[in-house]
Amino acid sequence: MKKIIFSTLFIAMLPQFVQAAPKNIIYMIGDGMGPAYLAAYRYYQDDPSTKAVESTIYDQLWVGVASTYPDDDTIVTDSAAGATALATHTKSYNGAISVNHQHQPLTTMLEIAKAKGMHTAIVATSQINHATPASFMAHNESRKNYNDIANDYVDNKIAGKFVADVMFGGGTQYFIRKDRNLVNEFKQAGFHYADSWQGLSQLNKLPALALLAPVGLPSALDNPVVDPLKTMTEKALQLLTPSKEGFVLMVEGSQIDWCGHANDIACAMAEMDDFAKAIATAKAYVDSHPDTILVVTADHETGGLSLGAEGDYAWNTKVIKGVKHSAPEISRLLLQSSETDLSQTWTKATNIALTSAELASLTSAQQQVKSAIGTTLPTNMDNLTTVQENAIKTLNAVVKQHINHYSRTGWTSGAHTAIDVPVLSWGQQRLDFAGFQDNTDIARKLIGYLESK
Amino acid sequence: MKKIIFSTLFIAMLPQFVQAAPKNIIYMIGDGMGPAYLAAYRYYQDDPSTKAVESTIYDQLWVGVASTYPDDDTIVTDSAAGATALATHTKSYNGAISVNHQHQPLTTMLEIAKAKGMHTAIVATSQINHATPASFMAHNESRKNYNDIANDYVDNKIAGKFVADVMFGGGTQYFIRKDRNLVNEFKQAGFHYADSWQGLSQLNKLPALALLAPVGLPSALDNPVVDPLKTMTEKALQLLTPSKEGFVLMVEGSQIDWCGHANDIACAMAEMDDFAKAIATAKAYVDSHPDTILVVTADHETGGLSLGAEGDYAWNTKVIKGVKHSAPEISRLLLQSSETDLSQTWTKATNIALTSAELASLTSAQQQVKSAIGTTLPTNMDNLTTVQENAIKTLNAVVKQHINHYSRTGWTSGAHTAIDVPVLSWGQQRLDFAGFQDNTDIARKLIGYLESK
Repeated sequence: MKKIIFSTLFIAMLPQFVQAAPKNIIYMIGDGMGPAYLAAYRYYQDDPSTKAVESTIYDQLWVGVASTYPDDDTIVTDSAAGATALATHTKSYNGAISVNHQHQPLTTMLEIAKAKGMHTAIVATSQINHATPASFMAHNESRKNYNDIANDYVDNKIAGKFVADVMFGGGTQYFIRKDRNLVNEFKQAGFHYADSWQGLSQLNKLPALALLAPVGLPSALDNPVVDPLKTMTEKALQLLTPSKEGFVLMVEGSQIDWCGHANDIACAMAEMDDFAKAIATAKAYVDSHPDTILVVTADHETGGLSLGAEGDYAWNTKVIKGVKHSAPEISRLLLQSSETDLSQTWTKATNIALTSAELASLTSAQQQVKSAIGTTLPTNMDNLTTVQENAIKTLNAVVKQHINHYSRTGWTSGAHTAIDVPVLSWGQQRLDFAGFQDNTDIARKLIGYLESK
Repeated sequence: MKKIIFSTLFIAMLPQFVQAAPKNIIYMIGDGMGPAYLAAYRYYQDDPSTKAVESTIYDQLWVGVASTYPDDDTIVTDSAAGATALATHTKSYNGAISVNHQHQPLTTMLEIAKAKGMHTAIVATSQINHATPASFMAHNESRKNYNDIANDYVDNKIAGKFVADVMFGGGTQYFIRKDRNLVNEFKQAGFHYADSWQGLSQLNKLPALALLAPVGLPSALDNPVVDPLKTMTEKALQLLTPSKEGFVLMVEGSQIDWCGHANDIACAMAEMDDFAKAIATAKAYVDSHPDTILVVTADHETGGLSLGAEGDYAWNTKVIKGVKHSAPEISRLLLQSSETDLSQTWTKATNIALTSAELASLTSAQQQVKSAIGTTLPTNMDNLTTVQENAIKTLNAVVKQHINHYSRTGWTSGAHTAIDVPVLSWGQQRLDFAGFQDNTDIARKLIGYLESK
């Protein structure tokens, strides 16, 4: 006779048979976080003293995958179309901030929540008016209209109320301008404002705004602040918890994408680590507040990352763990170094032993930047001449070439790719997000919860 | 009051609460089939006349992902270590055919099934003694010992019985040798043997052996036989169906990997199409035989495939659909072409319009092969001189460079990568394979079914 096998997953799911819509939604988007980033992070954080590879918070929550194609014939989405799909359950064109092809607004999840009297929040490590958070907050025909989008954060009201009660991230450059000081407008409307980490920690009431950098926050790998995204996520949850009506919190790991565009693996792993800690914070919140659903996904993959390259059967995490800064920061350090100290500066920053030919090419690239710019990079890199820009690009490229070569990290692009993205979830409704789905399906399910209230 | 939400997935799963172990197991391995191949196939097969992208059989069965790292410090597995993990639930070193580091045999799923009196089968589009099927059938310290491994298919007996009752694929070169004719040994032991597709179709009894090519079968894109893997899978299921004791059938989509190593996207999509049809056949079998579990996965990803490359936000499936042959076959056709006909031959084979500079470089590569080898490639490419080999490699590379460039298909390697692979399943126990798991966990669950008998 056959023995009886119980599906443990099934038993775990029994309490879900009849589900109430969750009171709270925590929606986390790892910008650019394709599936290779999750595998990479697992091997990167593995404890080499144990035989098995330890699973990560990403692995523990993994339930599905999502397609990301935009509403045009490119197949490859940008962050604006990707976030529009994730925020409104409607696909649009690349560049669209929650508008359709006719530039008419598409109602966002945060707008729906606000109309229902809920509390709402956005947290990002980019400027808060960057494509992903913007697609929850504003409507614009182009993601590039940063000032217009920032204006919308004040002007786009739902029944007289601001769309978000909490906004944490970067962006003073766009919110405190000569033509309009949006921070003052928020303050006058009752927002508690912080422009430092110290100030953030002292925020204790809604509504709250924290702008912690002129544009994006420093890269997690270079940031002296430990776990910046986790810190902002904790504070947002603390402020939102008293909400009787429930809340929708959108948290973006914004710079996974930026490291991907730069093909900078050490940078990407540090962002993945901060995002992992923010997710762990959110998961713990769900554990203590079971009326909350957590959904984590990505808008698209960035860079065509692969673990293994150049025909070699290996991916060397030791090399990546040895790299202490992002590539631009390594370039900055190299630039300040004398020719005799260059090798030592490189080794201190990367722990990678170069051949003499490789060191010579690094020296030559550094010399070119020194001739073109000097030993100190300007604060605002937007005003460089083409010669200066090319020199610094070359130095950055040489730095990353060595890191990628020695770690056998592969990249195919400085842009996005169309691979499906992971879907993670935690909470009673988590299996609603299981299996293959489109990115619009994720938003449809979450908006469905809101509309059932 | 909150409305009640029913989880449709949960309701669909209700009949599974108490599960018997399945009678039959269909285990399908897409060699090299990383997650990008599934997304690629979806966009490749999409009907452009409809707005939404149609989901595929892969999407419909998708339940989880699996890590693939071998038992050494490389992180990137080869097919032998990958298949050993999938066949025995134990990791080993790259190159191992179901042996541990001390070269001691690791018991395989097919051996366990045979010891339980079940019927067993392997189907592959490679030679049947290639790494993946070999890891279910044999034990050897190196995948390269093809003849020894083939010998094991006769010599490795379980309580006096052959490990497999059905073996379909390629490999006459290894099974009919001067030193030993294994086909005759099989025949003498009662195996029904076919060496043609016509012969395969006429097989109607167990045990059965079909060797349909000297080594691997022709690439699906070049093969005049339509859906070769699907055809073999159908025949295997037909022969296995009467089994009262139940069966384990392992089906490998072997050449997805080979196209990946070659960085040949049109070749890969044709293999994915044949594998999809074989999976659909298996799914239909489960639908009509609900005491069967179907599990589909991959041993690893090959090539570091990305949809989108070169910094462009696009992946152009039209280009790929226009390519009518694998790169080596296009090279063969180009070689037979006169200089004046070369452009026409290229266009007929690929439908890609080249610039005059691109055409000139193609002509030059073709001329080099003509000088080195002549207009006809030898049947056995193993005996080429280095000059000949380099010439044909260059021509192949130029062909693929244009296909990859115009389609914006990215690759990072001619070898494997360590991204997690998809896990698909169908049948009552399918959620046993849901979420993140290690490749050994898949085997552990399947072997658990066998051991519960």
